[in-house]
Amino acid sequence: MAVIPTRRHPIVCGSWRQTVGRPTLIIYGHYDVLPGEPLSEWRTPPFIPTIRGDNLYARGAADDKGQLFCHIKAIESYLNAERTLPINVMCIFEGEEEIGSPNLTAFVERNRGTFREADVAVISDTRMISAEQPAISYAQRGGLRTEVEVFGPAQELHSGALGGAVHNPLMVLCEIVAGLHDRHRRVAIPGFYDDVRDWSEKERAYMARTGPSDQEILRAAKVHRGWGEDGYSLYERTTIRPDVTVNGLAGGHTGTGSKGIIPAQALAKISFRLVPDQQPDRVARLFRDHIARVTPPTVRSTVRTMAPIQPALIDRRHPAVNAAKEAYKRAFGKTAIFIRSGGSIPVVHTFQHALGIPAVLMGFGLPGDHIHGPNEKLSLSIFHKAVETSISYFALVSQLKSFARTNQREEWIA
Amino acid sequence: MAVIPTRRHPIVCGSWRQTVGRPTLIIYGHYDVLPGEPLSEWRTPPFIPTIRGDNLYARGAADDKGQLFCHIKAIESYLNAERTLPINVMCIFEGEEEIGSPNLTAFVERNRGTFREADVAVISDTRMISAEQPAISYAQRGGLRTEVEVFGPAQELHSGALGGAVHNPLMVLCEIVAGLHDRHRRVAIPGFYDDVRDWSEKERAYMARTGPSDQEILRAAKVHRGWGEDGYSLYERTTIRPDVTVNGLAGGHTGTGSKGIIPAQALAKISFRLVPDQQPDRVARLFRDHIARVTPPTVRSTVRTMAPIQPALIDRRHPAVNAAKEAYKRAFGKTAIFIRSGGSIPVVHTFQHALGIPAVLMGFGLPGDHIHGPNEKLSLSIFHKAVETSISYFALVSQLKSFARTNQREEWIA
Repeated sequence: MAVIPTRRHPIVCGSWRQTVGRPTLIIYGHYDVLPGEPLSEWRTPPFIPTIRGDNLYARGAADDKGQLFCHIKAIESYLNAERTLPINVMCIFEGEEEIGSPNLTAFVERNRGTFREADVAVISDTRMISAEQPAISYAQRGGLRTEVEVFGPAQELHSGALGGAVHNPLMVLCEIVAGLHDRHRRVAIPGFYDDVRDWSEKERAYMARTGPSDQEILRAAKVHRGWGEDGYSLYERTTIRPDVTVNGLAGGHTGTGSKGIIPAQALAKISFRLVPDQQPDRVARLFRDHIARVTPPTVRSTVRTMAPIQPALIDRRHPAVNAAKEAYKRAFGKTAIFIRSGGSIPVVHTFQHALGIPAVLMGFGLPGDHIHGPNEKLSLSIFHKAVETSISYFALVSQLKSFARTNQREEWIA
Repeated sequence: MAVIPTRRHPIVCGSWRQTVGRPTLIIYGHYDVLPGEPLSEWRTPPFIPTIRGDNLYARGAADDKGQLFCHIKAIESYLNAERTLPINVMCIFEGEEEIGSPNLTAFVERNRGTFREADVAVISDTRMISAEQPAISYAQRGGLRTEVEVFGPAQELHSGALGGAVHNPLMVLCEIVAGLHDRHRRVAIPGFYDDVRDWSEKERAYMARTGPSDQEILRAAKVHRGWGEDGYSLYERTTIRPDVTVNGLAGGHTGTGSKGIIPAQALAKISFRLVPDQQPDRVARLFRDHIARVTPPTVRSTVRTMAPIQPALIDRRHPAVNAAKEAYKRAFGKTAIFIRSGGSIPVVHTFQHALGIPAVLMGFGLPGDHIHGPNEKLSLSIFHKAVETSISYFALVSQLKSFARTNQREEWIA
């Protein structure tokens, strides 16, 4: 095992490569998690794992420590029972997935010599349809994080003395955020949809048949009504359609009591979810241009962009993907279906493009696991089946003869 | 002296009523101040008064402890020099001015028996035009504070999984704030202008002649460009025109790093400045109706309103006001001009309507004193002249024979 320092959080690697002549599997996971806030909404503290009923509650229980742990337990089972593994394994666990894996791509590229032995990567950081219906994700949205800051007066002003005569930067920022969507709830940034791929009727019919219904999505999110771009189902809106949303906004006085002021500045954290064939760098440029254009001359604005993530698609016909399907069937008694994910796993694109291998997204989360929110959890009964699934997957991968390299255009065709 | 408890902050009263047959003057001030935040922008800590050059820097230096202290020093001067005062004095210092004086009106009404002896009130909580040009405020805007909260999903959601399919309450709040003004920068709440008084050309010409120019207002605020309702000067926008602005807004993740979430709720502190003949209670009702109407069915909103303050006007021809003009002339060598203020002093309306006496707004602040902001200050040379002005005012008031009661309609006619 090796702990490799990076500029921020170390990468933890371990390998077992004693099964000569058999395939090599990369197991990827991430040990970083989102902050626990708002802490008051957790029934038990986020960093004290607590079992209630069939669930383990903790930040990271589903995203991603609980899921990556399934594979560790599978390795342990083999070594305990057979003192060997049916395949070669290279584990790569990083600590920067939630911030866009800024150091992982360079690390993989630097160690291409080692990693080029790998035939396939498995990542368990996605969801099943339900406890009974396993799923393999074949699409991930890309992303881009931004911070927009608007600067008004040199310092806070009295809103009695000057309210109505000086432009309030917080109000300007609200106008900027309000203007991110048009009345059809499409992103109102010129050029934003230029590279968005239109999917065939066949693919959309497949999605309608296999994916969650609007009602299922809303029930899992505990939301009464959907929202979003005209002409698309909620499943489509969160997978084949891009979006922009505001993750946080702050400005002025927000403590107890009131303060009659015009604040000096205001900050919004705005993030994009991108789809094929959008390029994060191009979206960053369009966004900067847009903000510059809509900033009135009464204030000044700045834009920072970070954590660009490429959207990714995985070839559903790849033999290593079919092996995953079969592994699920053995453990869950049910054939996995293919779904698209709305989230982003930056490394998928890295594995595909730096190493030319597919990333098999074998998820064990459930729609109600509240990843990124309070009371994140992992189902323990699913966890046990996940270990069985991983054990079967090792065995199935060991039988594969061919790992045809995926081709970017091919893998993206539905 | 008496410290009278209220439900929140006590009222401090003191009186000297030994000058039989002479007028009685109420001296009003407030010892409460706004919070010091943002602390990082203060050159010296807000609650450690510090002298630099001619200025005393501290929170409350100008608003209002420094100004009320002028009258204390005037009383002290008389008592030291003459062992008596030329008039009777009742001091009322409260601790809730910045939150709309919620307990003072009831206190004044409860003690009407005591206070009905008063002939006039003096309040020093306003500004001069410049260090050379004293001013008497004859108009105060009223106000209303509100808090609007928008509730979305039951808890934070992952913006990858659900971005584009669930309405973001923070985005809704931005739309609500952005919609508070129309493209002419008028307040876009139906009915909001119904009771706004139109002023005569004569009054507007007087204001243009005596009031600060746009450039003077901008220079004092250290702002490059003005903003606001079409058709009015900056001085008019901040005095005879009402406005609404957002004092603070918070929602989602705003700490370091990023968090891909749709927040569960968002809060805005929004405040109104009102003018004759707007009624805070009616504006509160219009605002509640407006927010209910513009809240989309995908989210829920609540509105709290607080600290209603009536707009107030003071009769420029009242003999006690003329005495103030003369007092300034003796101390500053220059005749005071009449100006309107954009801010609000809740008690002005209380004195006028509960006691039927005028409030003489004899301010000693300067436009660059940064009240409510960082580095609030008071000029020490102005402070010394202010003590002289107060001493003269006591003497001049003692000579007055008639304190014609002001009439609400009359006092409001320009």
